[in-house]
Amino acid sequence: MLQRTDFYPSRLDSPADRLRRTAPTVHAQGPKRWQGPLDEQSLARFERDGFLWFDGFFSRDRVTPFLDELQELAKDTALANSEQVIKDPQSGDLRSVFAMHELSERFDQLTRDPRILGMVQQLLGGDVYIHQSRINSKTGFAGSGFEWHSDFETWHAEDGMPEMRAVSASLMLTDNSPFNGPLMLIPGSHDYFVPCVGRTPADNWKQSLKDQSIGVPDRSHIAALAERGGIEAPTGPAGSLLLFECNTLHASNSNMSPWPRANLFFVYNSVENQLVEPFSGSAARPEFLGARKNVKPLTMQERHVEADETQHVYSN
Amino acid sequence: MLQRTDFYPSRLDSPADRLRRTAPTVHAQGPKRWQGPLDEQSLARFERDGFLWFDGFFSRDRVTPFLDELQELAKDTALANSEQVIKDPQSGDLRSVFAMHELSERFDQLTRDPRILGMVQQLLGGDVYIHQSRINSKTGFAGSGFEWHSDFETWHAEDGMPEMRAVSASLMLTDNSPFNGPLMLIPGSHDYFVPCVGRTPADNWKQSLKDQSIGVPDRSHIAALAERGGIEAPTGPAGSLLLFECNTLHASNSNMSPWPRANLFFVYNSVENQLVEPFSGSAARPEFLGARKNVKPLTMQERHVEADETQHVYSN
Repeated sequence: MLQRTDFYPSRLDSPADRLRRTAPTVHAQGPKRWQGPLDEQSLARFERDGFLWFDGFFSRDRVTPFLDELQELAKDTALANSEQVIKDPQSGDLRSVFAMHELSERFDQLTRDPRILGMVQQLLGGDVYIHQSRINSKTGFAGSGFEWHSDFETWHAEDGMPEMRAVSASLMLTDNSPFNGPLMLIPGSHDYFVPCVGRTPADNWKQSLKDQSIGVPDRSHIAALAERGGIEAPTGPAGSLLLFECNTLHASNSNMSPWPRANLFFVYNSVENQLVEPFSGSAARPEFLGARKNVKPLTMQERHVEADETQHVYSN
Repeated sequence: MLQRTDFYPSRLDSPADRLRRTAPTVHAQGPKRWQGPLDEQSLARFERDGFLWFDGFFSRDRVTPFLDELQELAKDTALANSEQVIKDPQSGDLRSVFAMHELSERFDQLTRDPRILGMVQQLLGGDVYIHQSRINSKTGFAGSGFEWHSDFETWHAEDGMPEMRAVSASLMLTDNSPFNGPLMLIPGSHDYFVPCVGRTPADNWKQSLKDQSIGVPDRSHIAALAERGGIEAPTGPAGSLLLFECNTLHASNSNMSPWPRANLFFVYNSVENQLVEPFSGSAARPEFLGARKNVKPLTMQERHVEADETQHVYSN
């Protein structure tokens, strides 16, 4: 077997220093940097913080049908018992549904929304495809949190994603308040790769998607990065959008409020950054966690869709 | 045995409606209402919300010695192994230390701070004593939360506190941020008594102080009260003060930040509201959870103490 150089060594036997990022954060080079929806203020902020928040990006009416469809899907017992649906370890309620864009025409169309796709193509410097899509749901009183982690660390180690050239677009399907377990991020943490300690067990994802223990950075690294950049938890109405870089450290607390929280995630990866063999040495994860077949570049919908047009588009 | 009428029945076999509060929230009657540090704006707010927040009530320098002393006390292994120190169920770290005012002259003096005691006497309408004092500490990354509950429900059922005539003064010994598990309250929830389901086991406190399951209101009540009043989590620098009515529903989430959180609580009870036999029928809890002997009315320190005087006062 050909020996590969791994620029992001992780799942180690002993702790290691964090590595300064070498990959760009905005991948569009030269004049192409400004050929897209984001201006220099937004681009510079994304480079500094590793994320961008858009309060009320879509109207509430525009996102309601997505939440309705999720609730319909939750009634499908065959789906609910499939591996692409993850149950909450505490409550048994639905925690994550993967590959939403393959289950639903409505979600699939949203991946090609011109405003979102335009920004993502600008940040990643060209054509992109969906590496993974999911909904993370937390029911009132019961939804468990997610430990601090970098998505890229997992995608590199367990999926063989070569470089930091992916972006998550997270659309709030419900209001996100300080009390229903909003996503917390450490601004600037995307600038460091934090190697994690612990070998990757076979089929680690079956456990890690419920409660992650492998691929979790040592607390000393999180503390140092949080001292440097602080912690932010953007909150806002349903329809708000978060774009975050694949290596930005994030977490979320449990939902102690009565109010459910459901966020949709589309992970866009550059077509020049397609998956290879996992760097942890384990077997590739299922297609719904990391696409290897369905990697055709996305093309924009012809026009921007707003609330009152949704029904029309869906019936096409 | 004499049958008593219990106006706050709880620990029931089946769910029951919540009861509208009949006790006053501000107990000073007539012109005495305004004889104290709080003006009508603050009094009306306390009556409406069930709590008052004072951002930076003391300077940071004034509270540092209390935190230092807590850390000294934590080294005392005899104390750490005593029943009045509660360990975190997840991390094993120190979670609560009870009867701080009996362990420490510094804490004892603080219970008689003229500004705090003046407000409490005004709210409770006369002389008061310390029913309970404690520090709740959450270490970084590891400190567990507290379920939604009313303190009065427990103090009535397990300690025999007759009426809603007690106030907690909570002093922040560290900064409280949205990320280190701040206290959350439901404004207006003090206006209802929520009967809880479930018989009280013997020595329930040994479990409930780690992770409460008895004396926790049904989620339907919490949801209804949170829909009505919302949720608030006051945050601010070390030295900030929260006064909250004994029946206000509150909770806190786990601490996912690197930053520790330690809050000091003094529970003041009216001398006219002293403990009787517990209404749950169980045995009285230890003195450090609900005072029965040490109930002498508190008298004010002669003068208000600020930062640079602390050392002087302590050495007296």
